Order: sequence, then structure tokens, then C-alpha cells
Amino acid sequence: MRTLKLVVAYDGSAYHGFQKQKNAVTVQNILEEVLSKLCGETVVLAGSGRTDAGVHAWGQVVSLETKGSIPCANLIRASKKMLPPDIVIISAEEVEAGFHARYSAKWKRYQYRIVENEFDSPFEVKYAWQMRETLDLEAMNEAAGYLLGTHDFSAFRSSGSVETSPIRTMHEAKWERRGKEVIFTIGGDGFLYHMVRNLVWSLVQVGTGKRTPEDFAVELSAKRCEFLNEPASAQGLYLKEVFYEDYAP
Amino acid sequence: MRTLKLVVAYDGSAYHGFQKQKNAVTVQNILEEVLSKLCGETVVLAGSGRTDAGVHAWGQVVSLETKGSIPCANLIRASKKMLPPDIVIISAEEVEAGFHARYSAKWKRYQYRIVENEFDSPFEVKYAWQMRETLDLEAMNEAAGYLLGTHDFSAFRSSGSVETSPIRTMHEAKWERRGKEVIFTIGGDGFLYHMVRNLVWSLVQVGTGKRTPEDFAVELSAKRCEFLNEPASAQGLYLKEVFYEDYAP
Repeated sequence: MRTLKLVVAYDGSAYHGFQKQKNAVTVQNILEEVLSKLCGETVVLAGSGRTDAGVHAWGQVVSLETKGSIPCANLIRASKKMLPPDIVIISAEEVEAGFHARYSAKWKRYQYRIVENEFDSPFEVKYAWQMRETLDLEAMNEAAGYLLGTHDFSAFRSSGSVETSPIRTMHEAKWERRGKEVIFTIGGDGFLYHMVRNLVWSLVQVGTGKRTPEDFAVELSAKRCEFLNEPASAQGLYLKEVFYEDYAP
Repeated sequence: MRTLKLVVAYDGSAYHGFQKQKNAVTVQNILEEVLSKLCGETVVLAGSGRTDAGVHAWGQVVSLETKGSIPCANLIRASKKMLPPDIVIISAEEVEAGFHARYSAKWKRYQYRIVENEFDSPFEVKYAWQMRETLDLEAMNEAAGYLLGTHDFSAFRSSGSVETSPIRTMHEAKWERRGKEVIFTIGGDGFLYHMVRNLVWSLVQVGTGKRTPEDFAVELSAKRCEFLNEPASAQGLYLKEVFYEDYAP
């Protein structure tokens, strides 16, 4: 029995999220279908976590066990002809038995992409939150600084969350401007339901001057939603990378 | 009777080109449907020119005549709710009678987008030509320099072309690197069928060392296709801007 670790990128626009569903087309459905053919047997994938409908991935990780003998390089090459072009296996490697994309993960990095633009670009509608405002990144970074370390993130958990503990540790939380793009990078040991998108929405309130960084700190420490929050659109969110070693600053 | 000039951006991925067709969904079909509703009468659009299936536009121009009285600002606002998000009316203005998007145009600018990348990105597949090679932009710009001025472009016209004269004048032809993107900008008074995509393909042969800039000059002056040419993929091509004044360097 071999255990394989695959890194997968996908444009989530056309899919009902990552996680397998009976009556909807998801990324996992497609991947399992193709990988089962390539492995010569029905395989079941473990993903590092779900992504919602419309959310994208540069570095989703999936693991599987198979008796199939296809070499990893051949698997990547053959998958390009079988997968739709919006799902790409970037790398594949054999790993030690027991490796599990979700349970072995130590931390994850997400990015959220905002475009400060003059009009509603048809090229960005599926890939970013487009806004006319110019954001105050200094204020947003001051607020984001409060996220670092270990906190109770209940204030940024959407209802419908199944996670038991709201305690998470954030290693990275930073806004950067690249041309007309504004990118938020956040890395941590785990994320509650809609947490990144709720954080982005609240931080944008700071960036447009509707709240102060101190308001944001109060919101975080309140541990429950006293402020109006709503998740930023799925289209701007990217699962960037999943790490299987401890965070090292 | 009012004459309106609209600038339209679209993601061409989902459409069978710009030009109206009876049994296929095209950008013009959609625009005429929505604009007829907004003008309160059936309107017929004139586009500055066709774009092929999969080709995009930042600045396609369309003109129409209407008795409808809707103010231009309202037309833009209302169209956002009626058009699919991959077609956007960027601007609308009333112009003098007789203005025609195609016949009044003096010159056009196209861009072609190449991504030098490490893998086949699911995010670029509809928006660029992805290649693993690193292109020699100096050689490509040397070759592109031969395009400036007035030439017979027969060597770069695909069969199926309906244009009578193969003589065109190019005002701009330049390659630029922006991060991992390589952008070709070409501006001229008109383009033959598949001309930009054929030029891009040939210039990339120069950029990868398969031909020299001098080979390219010979190809251009041959006025017929002695070299193997094929159009670069539609996905990388963007109609950037249509100009209604003479070119001024």
C-alpha cells in the first residue's frame, strides 16, 4: 500500500466547493473520479480541509492510499489530460504511511484578494472583491496585528460552524498592496467557519474608516459578535498553502 | 434620434465571439437584448470589429441609434443589473449623428498576454498563453520593430480572411515583461484575420530561439506564408482600445 500526497490548484468558480457531495459537482468528486482511473481502483481522498463554493486554491493538499503502482510523474502528466483545465495537480509524492492531508497538517496560509478599481472588471468578478474605495492599509495592518498569537475567535465564526473549540493561533496576518491589488495573507493552525472572510470584512471596515483598529481589537476580545459582520465574498479567497511542519518564524 | 457610443469590456471565455449569430450566444446578442430593453425599442449595434471566440476586450466600442431617452448614466447603472457579470459597459456617451463604431475608427490597440510559469495555472488557462520557456524579449522586440510602418501583411493572414487589401499600417509593436507576465502591445489602422495571433506565434518562435529577428523580417517581406505559422491561442488576446482620432506619436 502506498500513501500519496498531492498538491492541487483549482479555480473554484465552477464548483460547489471542495468537499464531496452526492448531487453536486465538487473538486473532490472530480479528483476522486480521475485518480481512481489512474490508480486502477476506487480511491478515497482526504483533503486538508473544505473550501466553500467559489473559493480557490493554489495549494490544497490531498492524500490517498492506493495499491496502484503508477509513478508520481506519470500520474501528474496523465492527470493533465483527464482533469478539466480549472483543476491542476501541481505535485505528487509518495509519503510515509499514516500521512493524512487533514490530521497531519500543522498550519495553513490563506490569501484574500481585493482589487481597488475604477470599474467592475469582468476579469475580476470571480477572482477578487472589487471596490471603488482606496483602503488605509496602515490602519488595517494595525488591526491585523491584534490577530497574532492565540485567541478565542468566536466573534468571527459564522453560525453553522461545527468546530468545537474557538481557540486558534495565528502566525501571520498582513496586508500588502501590489499595484491595484490589495492582498491579505493570514496563516494559522486552524480556522473557524467563514473566519477568514469575516475577518476580511471587518478589517475592510477599518480600511474605509468606518471602524478604528481599537474597535477591531474590542470586537476580537468580545468573543461574540457584537458588531455587524458578514463574510467577504468567496471569490476573493485562496487556500494558498498547507504546512506539515511546525511554524518557524 | 440619438447616437450613442459605448465602451464595453468582456471576458470572452463563455461566448462564441463578439459578432451576432443566430444559433450561438455572442457578446453582441446579449448586448442588443439588454440595450433594446433599456432603450424601449429594438436597437441594432455596430461593433468596432469582431473578436473571435475566447478573445477578450477591455475597450470594445459599439454604437447605436435610438429614439430612447434614457440618460447615459442611468443606462450604465441599469445595465449592471441586467448584463451577466462577464460583460460590462464601462462608459456611454451621446455623440454626433453619423458616428459609427467601425467606420469612424482610426486605429486600434490589441494586447496579447503570455505567462511564463512553472505550472499550468487553472487561473490563467482562459486568460493567457502559458509557457514554461523564458522568452528573449530583446530579440522579440528587434523582430517586432520590423512591423512598424506600412506593410503588406499577407504572410500573417489566416485563410478565411475577408479583407480585400493586405496593406496595413502599424503604429506600435512592443513586448514588455511585468513580473511573470509578458505583454505584447500592437496598435495599427487595421488587422487582417488572425493577424495579431499569427504575429504573436511567430514572434514567440524568435523569443525561444527557433528563428532570428532577421528570419522574421524575411517572413514579413515574403508577403506569403513560407514559414509555418499558426495563431497563438485566442485566450491571450485582448482588444484593448479603439481610437477615433488619428494616431499621434
